[in-house]
Amino acid sequence: MRLSRYFLPVLKENPAEAQIVSHRLMLRAGMIKQASAGIYSWLPLGFKVLRKIENIIHEEQIRAGHLPMLMPTLQSADLWRESGRYDAYGEEMLRIKDRHDRDMLYTPTAEELITDIFRAHVKSYRDLPLTMYQIQWKFRDEIRPRFGVMRGREFLMKDGYNFDLTKEDALHAYNRHLVSYLRTYERMGLQAIPMRADSGPIGGEDTHEFLVLAETGESEVFYDSAVTDIRLGEREIDYNDKDQCRAVMEEFTSLYARTDETHDEALFNQIPEDRRRSARGIEVGQIFYFGTKYSEPMGATVQGPNGDQIAVHMGSHGIGVSRLVGAIIEASHDDNGIIWPEGVTPFHCGIVNLKQGDAEADAACEKLYAALTAAGLEPLYDDREERAGAKFATMDLIGLPWRITVGPRGLKNGVVELTSRRTGESEELSPEAAVARVAEIYAGHKVRGL
Amino acid sequence: MRLSRYFLPVLKENPAEAQIVSHRLMLRAGMIKQASAGIYSWLPLGFKVLRKIENIIHEEQIRAGHLPMLMPTLQSADLWRESGRYDAYGEEMLRIKDRHDRDMLYTPTAEELITDIFRAHVKSYRDLPLTMYQIQWKFRDEIRPRFGVMRGREFLMKDGYNFDLTKEDALHAYNRHLVSYLRTYERMGLQAIPMRADSGPIGGEDTHEFLVLAETGESEVFYDSAVTDIRLGEREIDYNDKDQCRAVMEEFTSLYARTDETHDEALFNQIPEDRRRSARGIEVGQIFYFGTKYSEPMGATVQGPNGDQIAVHMGSHGIGVSRLVGAIIEASHDDNGIIWPEGVTPFHCGIVNLKQGDAEADAACEKLYAALTAAGLEPLYDDREERAGAKFATMDLIGLPWRITVGPRGLKNGVVELTSRRTGESEELSPEAAVARVAEIYAGHKVRGL
Repeated sequence: MRLSRYFLPVLKENPAEAQIVSHRLMLRAGMIKQASAGIYSWLPLGFKVLRKIENIIHEEQIRAGHLPMLMPTLQSADLWRESGRYDAYGEEMLRIKDRHDRDMLYTPTAEELITDIFRAHVKSYRDLPLTMYQIQWKFRDEIRPRFGVMRGREFLMKDGYNFDLTKEDALHAYNRHLVSYLRTYERMGLQAIPMRADSGPIGGEDTHEFLVLAETGESEVFYDSAVTDIRLGEREIDYNDKDQCRAVMEEFTSLYARTDETHDEALFNQIPEDRRRSARGIEVGQIFYFGTKYSEPMGATVQGPNGDQIAVHMGSHGIGVSRLVGAIIEASHDDNGIIWPEGVTPFHCGIVNLKQGDAEADAACEKLYAALTAAGLEPLYDDREERAGAKFATMDLIGLPWRITVGPRGLKNGVVELTSRRTGESEELSPEAAVARVAEIYAGHKVRGL
Repeated sequence: MRLSRYFLPVLKENPAEAQIVSHRLMLRAGMIKQASAGIYSWLPLGFKVLRKIENIIHEEQIRAGHLPMLMPTLQSADLWRESGRYDAYGEEMLRIKDRHDRDMLYTPTAEELITDIFRAHVKSYRDLPLTMYQIQWKFRDEIRPRFGVMRGREFLMKDGYNFDLTKEDALHAYNRHLVSYLRTYERMGLQAIPMRADSGPIGGEDTHEFLVLAETGESEVFYDSAVTDIRLGEREIDYNDKDQCRAVMEEFTSLYARTDETHDEALFNQIPEDRRRSARGIEVGQIFYFGTKYSEPMGATVQGPNGDQIAVHMGSHGIGVSRLVGAIIEASHDDNGIIWPEGVTPFHCGIVNLKQGDAEADAACEKLYAALTAAGLEPLYDDREERAGAKFATMDLIGLPWRITVGPRGLKNGVVELTSRRTGESEELSPEAAVARVAEIYAGHKVRGL
């Protein structure tokens, strides 16, 4: 993409309404624009990041054997009356009347609807296990929406639902989700720690939240510092292997890590003192096992091997997709702007032309642009007639992890400059070597864009 | 995908509520399930097709130089009051009050919101031309929703908006959209004919609808039969070339082709009699040029080259994404079920094992599955213990364009059977040759799935 043809309305000033850094930087980098309270438009740069996050989630869910589908944003109130949640949900549920005066709602979650689909179509234990998920817009009518996309009203969420014959199978689904979520977050450059949490209006016995440590987090968290040393990394996972998934779950959840809702001071004090930590965290996902809470009242049963009707064991599993964009920025920025992890960066590499209009510099930039594109990468070429300082400031603000700077002086010596946004370190290289380096950096981060 | 692990709830009986073939087949093939009146869940098979259509649209829009972004589903009523459309829109607009009793609406289209984004950020003619688009859910509170996804209430739509300095530039945007839409539909295996239409509540002078001829179409259309002989085909298009885009537009729109809204009997009768056609058509897209209809009342102006403020010329452009799934089926099916065009098929090739449990047949199917996957294709392997007849019926119903049948008898002679869903013709080939043939067929249809 050439910046002269892109829509990137960066702001020089800090917007007064933004209280936290991710909100400020998303507005300043031209990623979002507020449409109304807690509701945002995703401008091209923001949408690119959102879509990459979506694609990583799809890839990891499909890898874990889960089936993508899509449920509508508006649902009839009837199903929610059946589960008893229509009245219980409170004012955060946006209630709507259609032209025939029927009660509708903008879905905050979809346990009822997926259970309705299940009970209509699945009759035998032979059709289990089954896990389906969607990435769809949700609405939560927050009384005081704030912090940009971190606590908006209309938000994009991945929500998945498993149906299993036994509690044991359903706990495997729980563990499988835990593992696939760890991989999902790691691919986004995030460390998200599973912490024992409270189940809230979803209900159920077992639940973990995934928290990203950040000063601006809304939750207080308490943990054993050793938990931050564990990574899933590149290990091979067989998602059908119950023992392997359980072992990963145990590895990541046996050290103390809890939100304030479930914090236990006595247990916490058993951690060696130098490893006790309290901090703030941003919730980016949650997994639940809730057994037959929905299947029993809604009649979601299957015929078991002996012919008897068995209420299925269920769980649900969510990732805050739009919120993740903010969470990644909270975890990865500096005074000059965003620093995208390679896995989610909207463009792989910036190209800054120090002397736009200079025939040699222009030609070198075009050649770099073509070579990066041919290598399957998306460069963003700042081809505007602007001062070098302004171009650098824009690149730093929007946070592309790598930048190639092209100027007449370097070209005389046959070199361009490759700069890391994270470290600020630069290296002089031939244009060909710079392209090869960038391609090598991204070899492990093949995320599809749009 | 192995069918034993997929969620494909096919129905044996024709659902009573479905009046048209696409609705019937989408229900029977387990693609959708009604959630409430005119509102559908997209089950895994349906969602895969929807997503492929979405990806084709993204690819063709990006190729034409348009920028993807995303606006929210719920908007404040304020902007619609500014344009005057809030009261004008009528009962099909779903009006909502939030917990603070503020007037909101579920967006049926987004001229107002995109114009608001534009006027906030674009100040100079140097930032033009600009075209942005989104693929987002819309709502239209139909009094009597029917025909499944063809006339639902919640529907997925691509809507794009161009901002240009002059009428001439905006007409180029119009032509560019016309060309990119033609390519989009052709990639989906559809012939969609641009027809002069009425602008309705969007407004404006110039508008064409794209219609797919089908008996079940809701519009009556009149055309010169010669218009059905034109194809865009593989010709190279330079979307920046105004003359080339205009020439394509003229080629496709100078022959008589109109909907009943703009039909002119006198003009129609000038067509040679043997080329006069009247038929039914399904609307799958529409493009508009409406000049300064929104930019003037909403103050969307830029500073021109001479320093004066100029209201920008705009147009908007829509594709009915969810409706396209139905339209494709209306245009491509037979008595046994759907016949997917290669460009949008949910799986590239079915594998039918005639003797599940037979060691040799199972091994051959596994090998085919692995080879097709390695070739970048997605096979659907019917690995259930079912009669051959039931397996064939399912494959025919869900409409995969190619099927490989594997049985002990053929394997003795070293062959499998490759069958075209469209023609019903079969060919015996070695498994390797069958894989090579299927890969060759899809070489020109590289559409990304999920």
